[in-house]
Amino acid sequence: MLHETVIEQFTIIVGKENVKYDNASLLAYSYDSTAQYQALPDAVIAPRNTEEVSQIVEICNEQKIPIVPRGSGTNLCAGTTPLEGGVVLLFKNMNEILEIDEDNLTMTVQPGVYTKTIFEAASQIGLFYPPDPGSMHISQIGGNISENSGGLRGLKYGVTNDYVLGLEVVLPNGEIIRTGGKLAKDVAGYNLTELFTGSEGTLGIITEAILKLIPKPETTKTMLALYHDLEEAAKTVSAIIANRIIPVTLEFLDQPTVKVVEDFAQIGLPTEAKAILLIEQDGAPEVVERDIDKISALCRENGAFDVTVAKTVEEAQALMTARRAALSALSRLMPTTILEDATVPRSEIANMVNAINEIAEKYNVNICTFGHAGDGNLHPTCLTDARNKEEIARVEKAFEEIFKKAVELGGTITGEHGVGAMKLPYLHLKVGEAGIEVMRNIKQAIDPNYIMNPGKMFARNKDEVVNE
Amino acid sequence: MLHETVIEQFTIIVGKENVKYDNASLLAYSYDSTAQYQALPDAVIAPRNTEEVSQIVEICNEQKIPIVPRGSGTNLCAGTTPLEGGVVLLFKNMNEILEIDEDNLTMTVQPGVYTKTIFEAASQIGLFYPPDPGSMHISQIGGNISENSGGLRGLKYGVTNDYVLGLEVVLPNGEIIRTGGKLAKDVAGYNLTELFTGSEGTLGIITEAILKLIPKPETTKTMLALYHDLEEAAKTVSAIIANRIIPVTLEFLDQPTVKVVEDFAQIGLPTEAKAILLIEQDGAPEVVERDIDKISALCRENGAFDVTVAKTVEEAQALMTARRAALSALSRLMPTTILEDATVPRSEIANMVNAINEIAEKYNVNICTFGHAGDGNLHPTCLTDARNKEEIARVEKAFEEIFKKAVELGGTITGEHGVGAMKLPYLHLKVGEAGIEVMRNIKQAIDPNYIMNPGKMFARNKDEVVNE
Repeated sequence: MLHETVIEQFTIIVGKENVKYDNASLLAYSYDSTAQYQALPDAVIAPRNTEEVSQIVEICNEQKIPIVPRGSGTNLCAGTTPLEGGVVLLFKNMNEILEIDEDNLTMTVQPGVYTKTIFEAASQIGLFYPPDPGSMHISQIGGNISENSGGLRGLKYGVTNDYVLGLEVVLPNGEIIRTGGKLAKDVAGYNLTELFTGSEGTLGIITEAILKLIPKPETTKTMLALYHDLEEAAKTVSAIIANRIIPVTLEFLDQPTVKVVEDFAQIGLPTEAKAILLIEQDGAPEVVERDIDKISALCRENGAFDVTVAKTVEEAQALMTARRAALSALSRLMPTTILEDATVPRSEIANMVNAINEIAEKYNVNICTFGHAGDGNLHPTCLTDARNKEEIARVEKAFEEIFKKAVELGGTITGEHGVGAMKLPYLHLKVGEAGIEVMRNIKQAIDPNYIMNPGKMFARNKDEVVNE
Repeated sequence: MLHETVIEQFTIIVGKENVKYDNASLLAYSYDSTAQYQALPDAVIAPRNTEEVSQIVEICNEQKIPIVPRGSGTNLCAGTTPLEGGVVLLFKNMNEILEIDEDNLTMTVQPGVYTKTIFEAASQIGLFYPPDPGSMHISQIGGNISENSGGLRGLKYGVTNDYVLGLEVVLPNGEIIRTGGKLAKDVAGYNLTELFTGSEGTLGIITEAILKLIPKPETTKTMLALYHDLEEAAKTVSAIIANRIIPVTLEFLDQPTVKVVEDFAQIGLPTEAKAILLIEQDGAPEVVERDIDKISALCRENGAFDVTVAKTVEEAQALMTARRAALSALSRLMPTTILEDATVPRSEIANMVNAINEIAEKYNVNICTFGHAGDGNLHPTCLTDARNKEEIARVEKAFEEIFKKAVELGGTITGEHGVGAMKLPYLHLKVGEAGIEVMRNIKQAIDPNYIMNPGKMFARNKDEVVNE
């Protein structure tokens, strides 16, 4: 509970209409898109500018009140669940595109702008903002930056941090700093832009960002390859790369996922295939044509029993939309959907998918797998019911084994979703205790009162028992 | 001076032949490629593996002995001058390419591998390591990573940090951590890979790196455009970008630089031009052809009095070699060459070059300017004589004004050379006191005994008087 005088101070700063502490509001921001995590905040505040953010943070720092900056809450790692109460900060009043600079190919935005709005604003003038996390139609750029979100175009274009050139950040002491700029090159000191990107709101609050844009690819082609066998699909992925082709998208769906997606989207996906690859290439027309021909041949050589190239833009979009619907489609089936993102080197995809299937069988849990094969970024997705405690215990054991396997294969516990509260118990698997200690020291150095999004990424103290 | 017993300990760890403390050795490593900075170390040690690095660091940490990790010392920011004595660490015994992984498009290297060796090893199998700092034929990758080196291909391909996927780092306490991996996506915790990259050896010692490779462009074309007027060259740069073309290289040379380079390289460069643009595009043949045609037209439209496309590979290479010789050529003219790298948003190049010329006139100093126009990364180069104290004082004043102007135009004090000792007094111009404080806190958190490359980037304490 916040003291009345604190609420009053907040109200003076942002105005009455931008401070909520009624039960309905608190409940609405007590969870994000992650199953099984919920905790009530004490207030929900929507500042109108950086100065107001700074003033709120100063009060919170003085009073040691936790702050959870939150976009649309589409994250899947319990990254914005207010586990220790405090203030949830919303950015609905800081949602402007401040500038598009066509000379320098940059867009300057406030954190509350929707990712899709950025993509569309760039697209309208022949420019391209590539990162496309699954939730991009409703996710906010501030959240994307805090989580360093990925998406379907990572293989060729990279992820969010590859497009963040500069930030304005309110530090936990209320001070405002600017990092980077409209610069292709900048080595003035430590790379704070990259440190804050992906720091999950634990080091400060992003109040403005300069994004990098690139010229829009002239054309795009989309194709589908069907396999009777998972190994053949994985071999195809390796063959494409071995032929020095980097497609923009190289997605894998297993049979259970295809069935569910087809049931949901009804666009005639081949449910008889054991595995499908959805492949997209973009660029100059001649190059795309050549790449798609070559990829088609490689698919066949490696065992695809059917290869089709989308003939129209509509057909291509239907395929991509179907893929993007995978999570929604899966989540209709059971009360609880747990979507993971264990990631391995590209060459280990087949091994990883096989391991996931074995682990699912061992623990008798229902796991479908789809994901970004080109990135080695898989989404094993468990369909379960949070009310079934016994099953959930098995699900948790299964995922722990999946994470361990991913790391054993040279991979990571999370490719694009973040650590948050959900994977806090597993971070040591990837970065080791010494790695966590470095991160903890950085956190302590920047946020000594531990007010910024507490309970995320790693435990506050070395010896704290985490719920593993 | 190191105590005899410490020298003995070092000798036991790395062997007698790998510890030097004779005067000639100490003198050889008392300076790097930066004019006017020199200080003797107490020992020069060449460890043979990560374990030995760790043992040396542990001793230094215990005894509070400074450590300066050093590649070939080609940096231009006094980044490896052992200002506080101590140990210079060399990597001549850790100079192996450990693995090239063609499935995952990665190369794993030790820090002592030459940048050019990496480029060539990739090239031989149809792959490409793009970063190409001017000194790449002798620079070591460990130094490139520590300085986040740039080069001539930054506009299209980015700089070193865009190609570092993972690191092995020995921390100041001797512990060994691994960050990142052979992964296109990895958000497990803070981005330590990016934090250590460009940290100038102040946070730890890089003992291994996983580099990202990309497919080698099929073809490259090189062209030259000559101008009677600087503004026209700058307008051309903007026009190319406005036409959504991103050339791989877009270099600018002013008349004084062209004259000196021609005198040095004798390849028939047009010394009558007031400004020249050297432009390169790579990629699929059709696309390169089209881009070069379009760029040629844009050069002419914007006032170039001559535009020539290199007809042969040899002709193209001669042009690029001439450009790469700029620093060597300039440094023949006077005893002391001070090469700077003030960087601005691309749209501000003309303003910045004009400002540099005005400042040079104001302080009556001799400054030539060339650099990466596409990146806004300029190299104003002062030809002077370090023995002439009065002139040097004017040179320093001129550069301070240049840095201030760069920042005023939305730029930075260093685009690719680093801060080191040389630009320590100016870092606040770019990142502010609050930004420095964040960096100092991070440094303090990771290197509490301040042993790692002391005296670089920012002063140890907030109130320390720096030699401005």
